[in-house]
Amino acid sequence: MIKNEDTSQASIIARTTDYKPPRSLSHWFIGRPLQTADAPHQTIGKAVGLAVFASDALSSTAYATQEILGVLIVLGPAAYGYVFSISAAIVILLTIVTVSYEQTIHAYPGGGGAYIVARDNLGELPAQTAGAALLTDYILTVAVSVSSGIAQIVSAYPVLFPFRVWIAVGAVGLIMLVNLRGVKESGTAFAIPAYFFVVMMVVTVGYGLFRSLSGSLGTVIGPPESQITQIIATITPFLLLHAFANGTTALTGVEAISNGITAFKEPRSRNAGITLIWMSMILGSLFLGISYLTKQIGGVFSEEETLISQLARTVFDGRGLPYLGTIWATTIILIMAANTAFADFPRLSALHATDGFLPRQLTFRGSRLVYSNGIVALSVIAVLLIIVFQASVTRLIPLYAIGVFLSFTLSQTGMARRWWRVGHLEPGKEIVDPGSTLRYEKGWQYKMIINGFGAVCTAIVMVVFAVTKFRDGAWIILILVPLLVTIFFAIHHHYKDLAFQLSLEKFSGLPARQTRHRVIVPVSAIHQGALAALRYARILSDDVTAVHVSIDPAETEKVQKKWKTWGEGTRLVILDSPYRLFIEPLVAYIEDIVENSQPNETITIVVPQFIPLKRWHYALHMRTADVLRQELLSKPGVVVTDIPYHVHKEVKA
Amino acid sequence: MIKNEDTSQASIIARTTDYKPPRSLSHWFIGRPLQTADAPHQTIGKAVGLAVFASDALSSTAYATQEILGVLIVLGPAAYGYVFSISAAIVILLTIVTVSYEQTIHAYPGGGGAYIVARDNLGELPAQTAGAALLTDYILTVAVSVSSGIAQIVSAYPVLFPFRVWIAVGAVGLIMLVNLRGVKESGTAFAIPAYFFVVMMVVTVGYGLFRSLSGSLGTVIGPPESQITQIIATITPFLLLHAFANGTTALTGVEAISNGITAFKEPRSRNAGITLIWMSMILGSLFLGISYLTKQIGGVFSEEETLISQLARTVFDGRGLPYLGTIWATTIILIMAANTAFADFPRLSALHATDGFLPRQLTFRGSRLVYSNGIVALSVIAVLLIIVFQASVTRLIPLYAIGVFLSFTLSQTGMARRWWRVGHLEPGKEIVDPGSTLRYEKGWQYKMIINGFGAVCTAIVMVVFAVTKFRDGAWIILILVPLLVTIFFAIHHHYKDLAFQLSLEKFSGLPARQTRHRVIVPVSAIHQGALAALRYARILSDDVTAVHVSIDPAETEKVQKKWKTWGEGTRLVILDSPYRLFIEPLVAYIEDIVENSQPNETITIVVPQFIPLKRWHYALHMRTADVLRQELLSKPGVVVTDIPYHVHKEVKA
Repeated sequence: MIKNEDTSQASIIARTTDYKPPRSLSHWFIGRPLQTADAPHQTIGKAVGLAVFASDALSSTAYATQEILGVLIVLGPAAYGYVFSISAAIVILLTIVTVSYEQTIHAYPGGGGAYIVARDNLGELPAQTAGAALLTDYILTVAVSVSSGIAQIVSAYPVLFPFRVWIAVGAVGLIMLVNLRGVKESGTAFAIPAYFFVVMMVVTVGYGLFRSLSGSLGTVIGPPESQITQIIATITPFLLLHAFANGTTALTGVEAISNGITAFKEPRSRNAGITLIWMSMILGSLFLGISYLTKQIGGVFSEEETLISQLARTVFDGRGLPYLGTIWATTIILIMAANTAFADFPRLSALHATDGFLPRQLTFRGSRLVYSNGIVALSVIAVLLIIVFQASVTRLIPLYAIGVFLSFTLSQTGMARRWWRVGHLEPGKEIVDPGSTLRYEKGWQYKMIINGFGAVCTAIVMVVFAVTKFRDGAWIILILVPLLVTIFFAIHHHYKDLAFQLSLEKFSGLPARQTRHRVIVPVSAIHQGALAALRYARILSDDVTAVHVSIDPAETEKVQKKWKTWGEGTRLVILDSPYRLFIEPLVAYIEDIVENSQPNETITIVVPQFIPLKRWHYALHMRTADVLRQELLSKPGVVVTDIPYHVHKEVKA
Repeated sequence: MIKNEDTSQASIIARTTDYKPPRSLSHWFIGRPLQTADAPHQTIGKAVGLAVFASDALSSTAYATQEILGVLIVLGPAAYGYVFSISAAIVILLTIVTVSYEQTIHAYPGGGGAYIVARDNLGELPAQTAGAALLTDYILTVAVSVSSGIAQIVSAYPVLFPFRVWIAVGAVGLIMLVNLRGVKESGTAFAIPAYFFVVMMVVTVGYGLFRSLSGSLGTVIGPPESQITQIIATITPFLLLHAFANGTTALTGVEAISNGITAFKEPRSRNAGITLIWMSMILGSLFLGISYLTKQIGGVFSEEETLISQLARTVFDGRGLPYLGTIWATTIILIMAANTAFADFPRLSALHATDGFLPRQLTFRGSRLVYSNGIVALSVIAVLLIIVFQASVTRLIPLYAIGVFLSFTLSQTGMARRWWRVGHLEPGKEIVDPGSTLRYEKGWQYKMIINGFGAVCTAIVMVVFAVTKFRDGAWIILILVPLLVTIFFAIHHHYKDLAFQLSLEKFSGLPARQTRHRVIVPVSAIHQGALAALRYARILSDDVTAVHVSIDPAETEKVQKKWKTWGEGTRLVILDSPYRLFIEPLVAYIEDIVENSQPNETITIVVPQFIPLKRWHYALHMRTADVLRQELLSKPGVVVTDIPYHVHKEVKA
């Protein structure tokens, strides 16, 4: 189908294509390519959305209570009294953050992550900081969650220990492949284990609570040896804050949905918002329930047996099938937390790239409509981290979670500022930000207070985190994030500078049409390849000069002789080269011509270039065209063209 | 100076150039570049020639007697009786080989190595075999001689042992640099230590003989412990052959001068021939003298102290200055044996390359008129060998010397055949071979017998060598040489095939002048870079089509709008790309045009290519031009040109 849209000035022809990517091995791995028009069908509903975006947050119920207990262990049995209170405080913080993000999701239906909110309300620097912090955290999420899942498997099968790094790398590769298939397919694939975990945890906690209320719940039989059995400390504010900070790891992943709104079916904001509330409710109640039951069963902090394991075998009276189900579900959800990062990282890096702060290639949506380059980049960096840190959770975890709280703080500060701006608008007027449109709303004060309060709370948690974990590795993040922000701005500067220089806005048009087109053909020997180049040169212009650099007098004589037969009357210049150099005299000759040329003259160098049948044949030839192009690249007004000559197939010579 | 040589048909203009290579760091290392016209001044006389080409052969006097003794040690004191006889037999063989090569040098004044003699008289396969054997042996000479020299130093200073590999690599690097300075300079630099060795050895042996005749020579005081003190075997032919074969390592390097004739001043053959005779006489008399004195002083075979050391301290009565001088001279000559290989390998590989059996780049003479690529290649391979074999002489030495004897055999067989051909020519007639001219000579029978006898003797030595040292590593050579020969022929096949295909001999000329020149300009966005490409395209032809691949509808709309202003009325084709691919639809479109084109049509693709200021900026751009060139390289009739657009300097945007 060809239609002319405009024939008045320049003819513009639109061609639809029936080009279909040919079948290839990659289709087997990631599925057949999808058309851009299929994009609306590649969105997900609330149920799958919960599986994709909640894995990260829900997986934290597997360890959050234990993390609190681990700090308070020094208090002895008195610890139990604080565990539930701290958990309750964290659930209140969760509620604040949830309400806060719920407001964000509705204000920014096109994607309302910390990056966009900070960009639209606080400026470029806070936005890039929030983005850098989140991107770092997503990479760490993949490394930490896969490493901890593999650690669980390895503690069950110690024979696998020497291979743990490569198992972890394989797991990342597998998650990458599934994600390259597209958000819909990866969601469906991962929904079953995610819901399996939710069901197992709800059953464990629910049955536990039932038995607790009916008085039939006992305490842990044969609890693992606790590292500390005596009271060695008294309660201090720092200890409480440290325990609180450890517990807030439960909140990591809550922001995931706000970054992934565009993955949802329409009405996006509504679907995403409802999913967020579901997620927070499940997360909050499981977390509270586990913390409550921990006290009831007398759960113990131990490196040898997790709290979840102690809880499950107490609730289910031993290590039967329900117990095993819970343990396996936990292992799987820990690995799957990585999937949430795979859903968000590529979207977020594409946003950065669209704004020109990361390489443009990250905006490219691959054959399955996902940001393939982002997915691959995330996998590669996470694999490097896993290899460097030898899949050690202990060494990776202190780096984790600071970034999330930094982005929480910036996001909610941005929202607070947004409500302030909304409150100071005259009714009827509107401000159109890149990410949302601001109109006056009643009750903006309450919303501002909610977001503002959230910002203060998360900022405190972030500081507590940075201080209590500084020496364990948090300092790396405090160096890395500013470094990344600097790189982002360097990239941005380049793109802006380039756009400015290439801009047509103040461009008065190119100089008048060129007056002369000189063509130079370097020939080292006269053969069919050189003649093809000469023929091409003569098509380009009538002003053709062949140039031969004379290194070997015998060869030069042959060239001169053959030229009389084959040169078609073209001028041949022979440059002597007393130092046996080839490129240098040629470049000097061309530079000489450039210097003595008129303005508006164009000079084209037509180089015969041999294209071999087999790769190793390249080693048998001097790659003159490549070298010449590299040498002349920096000369404006000079164009280097290579005329390939092929050896068609092996002929018996 | 410009002169027109021929104006009748095609004007040919010769330009002398006053281009001088600019000063650079490499001049400091290898000296300022030399003009090709300086070549005759870069030849060497007999005295320097002896130093360059005799180092390898003369250095073998340092170990040849010891090698014989090492085999015969099982005979106990009876061994001494055989050592001198075997040495005498070897000197007779040396005489035969020398006379034989003397004949060769005069018959082939342009370089008469085994390669050329075999090529002209026996055919390509024997020639390539001889060449492969010699090239392998030269590489081994470098690895073995440097390793053994360093081993001597390391046994004097054991603290250096852990660094021996890197000291050896450094020594190879140093010899490489000196050789890159040119044969004249390297000859002068190495002449002093070479003559120092000759003088020290002549003094040692001469003074020893004098003391022996005057009856004042004692026996070794406190000889090192001999590995075997009892008689454990009786004399057998195999034992004698084994001892003989070990001793013939004294002959390695005798062929060196025949390969390097072109390095000598005119009259080349005469100078080279006289140098050869000097060398053989010094080598023979030193070798015989050492073998004779070994019996007189009761020298002992030992891994701890060399025979030379025992001899020197007996002759000079202890470890005084003359003793130390002899030991140091021996160490230095062992390292310098490598220099002979550096003189011959590049020349020989250049011969192979000229005949098209090795990459042509090896014929390139560098700024100092030596075959730089050959020198560098030799260094790199030798360094690899040294690293792989950890500079161990014991592991390297069994690989060594077979190649030389193979080339001896082929060379003398070739010479014998040459005399036969000479003898069967009618007087007055002549045959012009590439390497020499054959005319009838009287007494050709005697010459044929000399060469034939030499061939038989060296063939026997080669077989003895291969059998006695097969398991120690000689098998590697027996695999390597045929493999190299196969590779040489594969390279040759490629060059011949290419020359055949490009040949103008049966070429009827290109088809009639092209009828149409289509130009296609892919544009992804309309900016100054794209307009520069468009402007260039319009210089090339009036038939220009711009092509935009539509991935993002918003971007496409911008392109269409801007085209109306800036397109200069050029046709713009918009290709939709439902799968978001860029290269593939473009290639499909171009292929479509190629298929529907007339014969004699040319299609040029003009691609705007961004050239960044800083290397890392490349990572921020899709390198469309490179990818497109690669994709279209295999399409005959399509030329890809990139129009570079530069970012001139950082401008505040």
